[in-house]
Amino acid sequence: MNVDGKHYRTIWLEAPDCVRIIDQALLPHRFGFMDLRTPDEMGAAIRNMNLRGAGLIGCAAGWGVYLAVRRHADAPDFAERIAADSAALLATRPTARNLAWALERMHEALAGGAPQDRIETARREAQAITDEDAEFSRRMGQHGLELIRGIAKRKNGAPVNVLTHCNAGWLAFVDHGTALAPVYAAFDAGIPVHVWIDETRPRNQGASLTAWELGHHGVPHTLIPDNTGGHLMQHGLVDVVFVGSDRTTAAGDVANKIGTYLKALAAHDNGVPFYAVLPFSTIDWTIADGVRDIVIEERGSEEVRFMTGWDDATNRLATVRICPEKTPAANYGFDVTPARLVAGIITERGIAPASREGLRALYADLHP
Amino acid sequence: MNVDGKHYRTIWLEAPDCVRIIDQALLPHRFGFMDLRTPDEMGAAIRNMNLRGAGLIGCAAGWGVYLAVRRHADAPDFAERIAADSAALLATRPTARNLAWALERMHEALAGGAPQDRIETARREAQAITDEDAEFSRRMGQHGLELIRGIAKRKNGAPVNVLTHCNAGWLAFVDHGTALAPVYAAFDAGIPVHVWIDETRPRNQGASLTAWELGHHGVPHTLIPDNTGGHLMQHGLVDVVFVGSDRTTAAGDVANKIGTYLKALAAHDNGVPFYAVLPFSTIDWTIADGVRDIVIEERGSEEVRFMTGWDDATNRLATVRICPEKTPAANYGFDVTPARLVAGIITERGIAPASREGLRALYADLHP
Repeated sequence: MNVDGKHYRTIWLEAPDCVRIIDQALLPHRFGFMDLRTPDEMGAAIRNMNLRGAGLIGCAAGWGVYLAVRRHADAPDFAERIAADSAALLATRPTARNLAWALERMHEALAGGAPQDRIETARREAQAITDEDAEFSRRMGQHGLELIRGIAKRKNGAPVNVLTHCNAGWLAFVDHGTALAPVYAAFDAGIPVHVWIDETRPRNQGASLTAWELGHHGVPHTLIPDNTGGHLMQHGLVDVVFVGSDRTTAAGDVANKIGTYLKALAAHDNGVPFYAVLPFSTIDWTIADGVRDIVIEERGSEEVRFMTGWDDATNRLATVRICPEKTPAANYGFDVTPARLVAGIITERGIAPASREGLRALYADLHP
Repeated sequence: MNVDGKHYRTIWLEAPDCVRIIDQALLPHRFGFMDLRTPDEMGAAIRNMNLRGAGLIGCAAGWGVYLAVRRHADAPDFAERIAADSAALLATRPTARNLAWALERMHEALAGGAPQDRIETARREAQAITDEDAEFSRRMGQHGLELIRGIAKRKNGAPVNVLTHCNAGWLAFVDHGTALAPVYAAFDAGIPVHVWIDETRPRNQGASLTAWELGHHGVPHTLIPDNTGGHLMQHGLVDVVFVGSDRTTAAGDVANKIGTYLKALAAHDNGVPFYAVLPFSTIDWTIADGVRDIVIEERGSEEVRFMTGWDDATNRLATVRICPEKTPAANYGFDVTPARLVAGIITERGIAPASREGLRALYADLHP
């Protein structure tokens, strides 16, 4: 999407030996880039979260393999070297589903191509993964756009108020994003939209990333504490909720950033439609009951006890402790929103009811 | 309650000319006191939030009038001077219900007493307001204790997990508090309890005040982001929710710190009993529909955009910005939890169903 009028993706091939990314570790306080020329550099960028987000991590892995292929193209032990670099890439974020998937896809492409074309095969496949990610996001945006268009029509052109949680925007993918893709599509189509952004404690992805990307594309928005959404919905100030998903069960239960479930409850209580926006790769067809079966990652308590931000006085990043020195804290990364609270699941193929039947109908070809 | 084994109240008469308070502006990073010798000093302490909390503000106003009476006891224009000092005290926090109520009560006591006994009359009334606040809190604690005792029995002595939002502990009153009074009563009675503390963005009263007071009394607790409670309840990790209230309608709708409604929804969805704990002075008998009729105060957006905490590197308070420089933010102070989500209302008189009939039955003498 745009940054102050200029179009960007989160990752691209800048030169044959250089993959360039937006350095997200600096956001929202600085907008800068990072150039990656070796698979090790790409691995470090993933591990250090200079890039993050389900879709983007997969693309980064693909480009990491491309950089490895360039380096080892003429090595007699090419296969071993690629395998070693791939294992190192996989180890950077072991639970990221898209990472393993992208590595597998790169290996299949290389296995099917001629050895003398290795570099071009790897470049083409990494680019295809990247373009496909952007295209899937674009399509999710188009499907969601129709929902927003319908709401705008009912509101006679008054701004459509969207609430979102965490960052499922273009910074988490190559372009467009998932939850924010319909918002960008509507904004670019001239439909008046306004986004309530949950700050998303404890890591503040809403306050830092979602606020940054909507602001620089020009989409009207307001940052709110995570506590606020229910009150807004009680007073008719939210027309629709869009969230992303880290994992969606075959029955339509949606695992997403911690706190998503609370917003789904409030949406349900106030008749506000709540949609999860996700590519099909997020759907885990092997499980049904998400609350029971999805294991929720616990993260370090320092993310809750400390807060990092910009110190305008000293013009540098600073970290402050917001509780007593010895206070223990718990930090669950995700929660699960039961399908009964989800109005629909928007994928690259369209909008499905959040149910086993709904999802299977949309992906009938995957379930012969 | 106790601070590291020594009993404290939040306010007391240290010497005839000196009211001492715990300086809450320093908490949780420093534990210190402030001595107030004039009504102006008391007014400044209220305005600058060296003390805060519904009950405590009322007591502070009472002691402010006492200090004024001492100063003006022999003045020929005594009544005018007291009226002026009272008006100044009232203006420090114009929306605090208890402030006006306590001033009124002081004036009535003075009007009914002999001029030569003014100082003693004022001292006695301020002390009565203070003792009554502590006694009401103690009684709420005893009523809530029975609930916790019942849960502990069903759990065969496993710790009872309480979730609370914001700070409705002894720091907001003279002693015991409201929402935390049952917790202290249970802990002091030897019942194993553990408290999940919502950090309570944007002002972090949970992370700073509730964590501090539970920690120093010795009650086991864990700080969590406000996003977490729903996930905990889905997994059986919360047995009961206790919150305070800033205003409760005649029909049992509960206005409390923003985000309370989201926890009530999650409690209801998971069969966890949700109680509001409040003294009768919090009940507004003139309104029924809280969502419709209670006007919710909007506060400054800087409370959302900036976060203050302790910088362990420089050993001083520091403030950091957690969003882009130009991000707009909204800051609603409270929300309203409809009575249908409230299992009961605990007051100094007992536990009432959250309904017009329930509350009127408990206060039949107020509704002749």
